[in-house]
Amino acid sequence: MTAPGITWPAGFSAGAVTAGIKPSGKSDLALIINEGPRSDAAAVFTRNRVVASPVKVSREAVADGQLRAVVINSGNANACNGAQGDVDARAMVDAVSQGTDIAVKDIAICSTGLIGEPLPMDNALAGIADVVDHVGTTPQHGNDAATAIMTTDTVPKESAFAGDGWSVGVMGKGVGMMAPSLATMLVCITTDAVADATVLQSSLEKACAQTFNTLDVDGSTSTNDTVIVMSSGASGVQPGKEELDQAILEVCADIADQLQADAEGVTKRVKITVEGTGSDEQALNAARTLGRDNLFKCAMFGSDPNWGRVLAAVGMADADMDPDNISVYFNDQPVCVHSTGASGARDVDLSGAGIDVRVDLGTGGEGTAFVRTTDLSYSYVEINSAYSS
Amino acid sequence: MTAPGITWPAGFSAGAVTAGIKPSGKSDLALIINEGPRSDAAAVFTRNRVVASPVKVSREAVADGQLRAVVINSGNANACNGAQGDVDARAMVDAVSQGTDIAVKDIAICSTGLIGEPLPMDNALAGIADVVDHVGTTPQHGNDAATAIMTTDTVPKESAFAGDGWSVGVMGKGVGMMAPSLATMLVCITTDAVADATVLQSSLEKACAQTFNTLDVDGSTSTNDTVIVMSSGASGVQPGKEELDQAILEVCADIADQLQADAEGVTKRVKITVEGTGSDEQALNAARTLGRDNLFKCAMFGSDPNWGRVLAAVGMADADMDPDNISVYFNDQPVCVHSTGASGARDVDLSGAGIDVRVDLGTGGEGTAFVRTTDLSYSYVEINSAYSS
Repeated sequence: MTAPGITWPAGFSAGAVTAGIKPSGKSDLALIINEGPRSDAAAVFTRNRVVASPVKVSREAVADGQLRAVVINSGNANACNGAQGDVDARAMVDAVSQGTDIAVKDIAICSTGLIGEPLPMDNALAGIADVVDHVGTTPQHGNDAATAIMTTDTVPKESAFAGDGWSVGVMGKGVGMMAPSLATMLVCITTDAVADATVLQSSLEKACAQTFNTLDVDGSTSTNDTVIVMSSGASGVQPGKEELDQAILEVCADIADQLQADAEGVTKRVKITVEGTGSDEQALNAARTLGRDNLFKCAMFGSDPNWGRVLAAVGMADADMDPDNISVYFNDQPVCVHSTGASGARDVDLSGAGIDVRVDLGTGGEGTAFVRTTDLSYSYVEINSAYSS
Repeated sequence: MTAPGITWPAGFSAGAVTAGIKPSGKSDLALIINEGPRSDAAAVFTRNRVVASPVKVSREAVADGQLRAVVINSGNANACNGAQGDVDARAMVDAVSQGTDIAVKDIAICSTGLIGEPLPMDNALAGIADVVDHVGTTPQHGNDAATAIMTTDTVPKESAFAGDGWSVGVMGKGVGMMAPSLATMLVCITTDAVADATVLQSSLEKACAQTFNTLDVDGSTSTNDTVIVMSSGASGVQPGKEELDQAILEVCADIADQLQADAEGVTKRVKITVEGTGSDEQALNAARTLGRDNLFKCAMFGSDPNWGRVLAAVGMADADMDPDNISVYFNDQPVCVHSTGASGARDVDLSGAGIDVRVDLGTGGEGTAFVRTTDLSYSYVEINSAYSS
């Protein structure tokens, strides 16, 4: 059975085709259409200073809080292609407009894949002419779109939330280049709730802060990352702000879990919680510093309870700490107390796929935060060295 | 032939023994003695907030600018061992004092190895009683000391500089945990030049800034890193400040090269130069950001001229840039101009062991800086996951 995704909320159709942008010959072009009656939308984009052409185009499109379609290609990021990249992104949007009668200003575009290769525009435009005739509202249509946006993802990523007479659907992709400083992947959220753009933007930013922005696979940050939410209003139901916040949060959290589980070369899912420091921001600094430390990540790959690397890493973080009073817990077992090894620390079993790391920086402060990261494995190196991607 | 090292300058003796601190049974305890007549000294230490007990002891010892001995053990970092770690480090210094008649306040101590394991003090103290009888002034004695401080190093690291009637010798170790924010390895420099502690400190800090602090293997920073310089004054020659600066710089640069070449799992030595930004500090930020980006480091391992990852990485750096005017050169060949791929960019040959990367951030600014880093290889993951180290 195909799970509910972006076509589950009323008012949304989607579809995908093989345009020939991916050398593999797999599907690589997806279209999502908001049939209305409303077209409220919001988005967050990469904080990278180097942004891909589709990000520039989509930022303009969503600026008025209205979107009726999103076209997404995989296999080519259309990033660092200079003025030609901007021309190509606009040409794709123009082609969607011609095929759907949706105004250019209401169409967003996302691209993902190799940076710095010109888009094969003949293929892209032919694909758009094709996909506009292949959209539909079944779960399979949504799944087709979720599949077409995959790059080194091994599975499509979808989720949904059922409200009281309204619903939310989501699809996402991304297995590397996920870092907490931004969205760092492509995610598209649909809802038939009645919600204006300001409300959607607020819900989206809150959800991203707690989900995608706490996910850090390799500290790298893409030029293309985009999270878009579109509302059709087709349910006629206007949920309360808290209800909507919760719904958007839940689907984002589910996609974040799926992204972490499918991260490039992952053999361990590691949750790092830091507490006992001056502020939540300081705790986040320390958690990120640890989550990006390659020596720590290699130890996690080796199921090695090498807590010394935890202390060495957090000791460099911009956070208040008492260097003589740091505690570390692996899977809730104390391995370091008062910055000194606890008995049995070397025998803690980290052989499972999930590892929970908790660090108390020992100041007695109230600051706390967590990030989710992964180990550093042979596969990560293989995936990221053997192919241009 | 054994190369000249720390015993080359007049007034220094050294030696090493197998104390049984390393499980491997290899030599693991070294002693360097400054026979004088002078005992001027200077040092730089890790900037990590979590510091090992020997760092605390050595900071106190060198505070008055005088040192007559350094004892170094490998196989155990004596870090994160609480109050017992401090007691043990002081007991080792006491033992050196008893065996040599050098005052405790003139003895520094360094340790390197696993964090969080108590030192096997019986072995350490017996080793010290032994090593005081095994010091000498031959090149072999210096080489023995350089060998005894190795951990996962595959070769001892030594160098020397000949002045006009005076000389400098050096030994160092360190293959991981090297990061530019600090010294991040153990290095001991000896000289028979006449130079007071203030002059030595100035020369050492200048040299570190240009050598060890530009070296970044994995962004990690040790709890134990120490660079010490000792002057015997035995040559009776007082070189000019510029001469001394140059000599210290040259031996540090040579050791930094050796450290980079022997870095854990390295298959590529990568030099990253950044220019065209607002200040040298901004250039250094950008160079470090790129040098720590795992996706970039994996591409280097794969000899993949994937310049898109360079742009994606520097786009997150805290540095002035023109995102539409960034240029990238691999081995002096332009691969990206005006933030767009140059023709032939994918065909640049990166198969050699050395890769030169130059990035112009396109603002026309005068800021420039470089760092040296390495690729991210299967071996790096293996070395750092298979063993507690």
